[in-house]
Amino acid sequence: MPVEESEACVVGVDYGTLSGRAVVVRVSDGAELGSATHDYPHAVLTEALPDGTPLGHDWALQVPGDYVEVLKVAVPAALKAAGIDPADVIGVGTDFTACTMVPTLADGTPLSELPAWRARPHAYVKLWKHHAAQPQADRINDLAAKRGEAWLPRYGGLISSEWEFAKGLQVLEEDPEIYAAMDRWVEAADWIVWQLTGDYVRNACTAGYKGIRQDGHYPSPEFLAALNPDFAAFVAEKLDQPIGQLGDAAGTLSAQAAEWTGLPAGIAVAVGNVDAHVTSAAARALDPGQMVAIMGTSTCHVMNGAEVREVPGMCGVVDGGIVAGLWGYEAGQSGVGDIFGHYVDNLGAEWTHERLTELAAAQKPGEHGLIALDWHSGNRSVLVDHELSGLLVGETLATRPADVYRALIEATAFGTRKIVETFTAAGVPVREFIVAGGLLKNRLLMQIYADVLNMPLSVIGSEQGPALGSAIHAAAAAGAYPDVRTAAAAMGSVDQALYQPSPDHAAIYDELYAEYSTLHDYFGRGTNKVMRKLRAIQRKVSA
Amino acid sequence: MPVEESEACVVGVDYGTLSGRAVVVRVSDGAELGSATHDYPHAVLTEALPDGTPLGHDWALQVPGDYVEVLKVAVPAALKAAGIDPADVIGVGTDFTACTMVPTLADGTPLSELPAWRARPHAYVKLWKHHAAQPQADRINDLAAKRGEAWLPRYGGLISSEWEFAKGLQVLEEDPEIYAAMDRWVEAADWIVWQLTGDYVRNACTAGYKGIRQDGHYPSPEFLAALNPDFAAFVAEKLDQPIGQLGDAAGTLSAQAAEWTGLPAGIAVAVGNVDAHVTSAAARALDPGQMVAIMGTSTCHVMNGAEVREVPGMCGVVDGGIVAGLWGYEAGQSGVGDIFGHYVDNLGAEWTHERLTELAAAQKPGEHGLIALDWHSGNRSVLVDHELSGLLVGETLATRPADVYRALIEATAFGTRKIVETFTAAGVPVREFIVAGGLLKNRLLMQIYADVLNMPLSVIGSEQGPALGSAIHAAAAAGAYPDVRTAAAAMGSVDQALYQPSPDHAAIYDELYAEYSTLHDYFGRGTNKVMRKLRAIQRKVSA
Repeated sequence: MPVEESEACVVGVDYGTLSGRAVVVRVSDGAELGSATHDYPHAVLTEALPDGTPLGHDWALQVPGDYVEVLKVAVPAALKAAGIDPADVIGVGTDFTACTMVPTLADGTPLSELPAWRARPHAYVKLWKHHAAQPQADRINDLAAKRGEAWLPRYGGLISSEWEFAKGLQVLEEDPEIYAAMDRWVEAADWIVWQLTGDYVRNACTAGYKGIRQDGHYPSPEFLAALNPDFAAFVAEKLDQPIGQLGDAAGTLSAQAAEWTGLPAGIAVAVGNVDAHVTSAAARALDPGQMVAIMGTSTCHVMNGAEVREVPGMCGVVDGGIVAGLWGYEAGQSGVGDIFGHYVDNLGAEWTHERLTELAAAQKPGEHGLIALDWHSGNRSVLVDHELSGLLVGETLATRPADVYRALIEATAFGTRKIVETFTAAGVPVREFIVAGGLLKNRLLMQIYADVLNMPLSVIGSEQGPALGSAIHAAAAAGAYPDVRTAAAAMGSVDQALYQPSPDHAAIYDELYAEYSTLHDYFGRGTNKVMRKLRAIQRKVSA
Repeated sequence: MPVEESEACVVGVDYGTLSGRAVVVRVSDGAELGSATHDYPHAVLTEALPDGTPLGHDWALQVPGDYVEVLKVAVPAALKAAGIDPADVIGVGTDFTACTMVPTLADGTPLSELPAWRARPHAYVKLWKHHAAQPQADRINDLAAKRGEAWLPRYGGLISSEWEFAKGLQVLEEDPEIYAAMDRWVEAADWIVWQLTGDYVRNACTAGYKGIRQDGHYPSPEFLAALNPDFAAFVAEKLDQPIGQLGDAAGTLSAQAAEWTGLPAGIAVAVGNVDAHVTSAAARALDPGQMVAIMGTSTCHVMNGAEVREVPGMCGVVDGGIVAGLWGYEAGQSGVGDIFGHYVDNLGAEWTHERLTELAAAQKPGEHGLIALDWHSGNRSVLVDHELSGLLVGETLATRPADVYRALIEATAFGTRKIVETFTAAGVPVREFIVAGGLLKNRLLMQIYADVLNMPLSVIGSEQGPALGSAIHAAAAAGAYPDVRTAAAAMGSVDQALYQPSPDHAAIYDELYAEYSTLHDYFGRGTNKVMRKLRAIQRKVSA
């Protein structure tokens, strides 16, 4: 077998919330030959800038140089771990958290790297979980509903404070100087590709899901001017850029990026992509009705559909948003593993996830007498409201930590069921549920999800789903396969129906889910606005 | 000064949930000369009888011999600590938890002391917080409402599962042999006086509040027969007994009790009483509108009124229930200190009440963004529903243990405000709020209560309020004063308006209380029955 067939490799780089992971993958069969991770030196800035400048409530920033460090450290380390000749690498692909936004000059230089702006919070990367643009999101939603904007139903009727327009409007209104200095407002998914190739190509996925680009158009200047007259030219001046399709090449690896990474200059660099969306390829789940849930600190749900439908509270539906030729649907849960982690962190040192899971696993469904709402980080789908917060009902003096822990797991499962049912009810049926992400290691959690959903759960075969997905896109971009679906069939992997629901458990969970749904609608759909009120009081007294 | 005037003393004995406390008090001025406590060897039985016989959910039993041990151990120890001549003691008074019920033979022998019944749970004392008679309470309430029983409004429209009839009916229906063997169904408050004097006198207080005795009558045989034909003669055969007024002598100390206690035989023994009700005398708070809150693991509210009114959800209104000549009103919160204790116990060893209080005290009202419902032990007033449970709303990933701790304190304060407002709205205005009980030591809690109620808080002067109150009743029973009010004026003590509300805090708490009230009514008044449903599911899956 010629070397170029048997040994060809690709590199996938997955940019997460706290670190970047590079993996070297064999093109022929998807074998993962080596990987390495690198933690971002600045992690997430929530309290202050590196120089001590304080940040407001709900802020979450990052430092763009940290992303480049991943190229310099993790990619060479992964190549070394794989033990391959870097010359065998024919392409590189990346995926990123989204919507994570970098304010840059026209050449891509992040404003936070300029001495003039270094002490200005708005000069930094706004991470996906920066939630301080909620007032702007509220106004965008109100105005869009009032004007009957055609794009609004494509986002389940509400756009999120996490997305490009809300965050961009926040920059304008809170720091107009930074807004003026900002030539481009760039998805980090595209910014990293720009660093690799030297060219700025905007990927179809984030442009659609986070940039409100539908049927080739962004929101109109009239709409933007009605939000704020100075925002009228936002799209034309800061945002618009030629679109690249997922799986295509955005360009080739520049000499500088070759030097950073140790990869050959000139190899294909795939169009930027999003961590959740590339995972569908890694899980070989690109057919309509195959919902992939990437479950970690939060959960993202992605699924293809043959047609466009309006699903209430989905994050979005984008033509070619997951794979070319199908409509990509996205939904999400803002907090999942985060919620469990927070609960454990607040308990004393004697409590661990393992111990709580062991005790919780000894219980029957319904035994603890609790129901929780999983909104500690707000609710992304199907309510799209980051002012919501958590709830626990049923506590008595007999309640023990493992009871609460199990109730929190169940709450996230109920939240997932709410999403699945909403899709199905909207004419986008969920036929298979495939889990990826770190939480699949918790077997109790997986069984609870199977029981609550009353569906078998399939499980991705790779422990590095997003990085493998990026590698699959790299293989397609390099032309090793005709398209992403063919590449995914050869390189992805899945264990089908690994967890089966128990009918007895499912029956109890049906009863509990009915109660969850009542609470969900009462607190989440405006009957009782106590959660918003509590945040408003909190802001008032903390001001 | 003649010895009999200067040195005359009385002994008060307070029977709490876990221990009994004896205090020796000077009759002339209420000075507490010495005290001692004795823990009940069997504490509270919730899981099993001493022989291992398991108990059901929501059971709480005690062993009557433990009460006699208090007479044998704590009274002599208190006399010794006081350094007085026991011959100077002219009377003894007692108070007890209520409704705590002892099933006995005709001579007062507890059934649990008979070998034949020793392994039978229903032969034991049912402690006030035995909540397993809720189904019986529900039926009593349904039937009383249907028949329009005149006594029902005297109990706020609902009687409690904690009381004499619900607990008695549970005995009949779950263990008819024990019911048949039970000649008397005796309040522990009266049983201990029976042990001291050799005679059974039923006190007006528990007969009224817990025994549904109103205007000289108990529920009719027709009513009882409609509940269960075998229950028709319950009053006549098990319950009825001559009534003694509070502050009167029930009799004199028997030779046997003199031997147990070291007190002179033949001295006055006051009619039995209840811990909360005697505290009003100790706090010199016997005038209409002076509400005394005895705050510990739970809170009991007692207040005199000149007239009888129907207060929704009060525990009861009884002629002479606190002091002769006035209508005694009672309300309560099932869980207060219990709730804080449970929270701390679940956190782990590094957290203490002191540390949490210190951190919580550094916060402003509203800063934590939380609201809790204080129903971990159900709700006594104003909802009278022990199937309710706790709720916490507003938790985010930023929530810390001290936030929850403060929210729980606030929840109990909101619960108190609900009671105060309900009384005032029903035409029984609360003019002064006086705190007794262990929680008055927590200054943060006291300030929060002042701010939430927007009222000054007065504080009882004694650290042993109930025992002092019992001693005051002993002094009246012995004839050292013409009545309890005169004795209380001389022997009781209070620090008036020790805590003042902050107008700024009160304004924020008004906003939070409005939210609490909405949640209170939504979950507590039947709009959303999730709390009952969760308990029903819990029972079903645990069966």
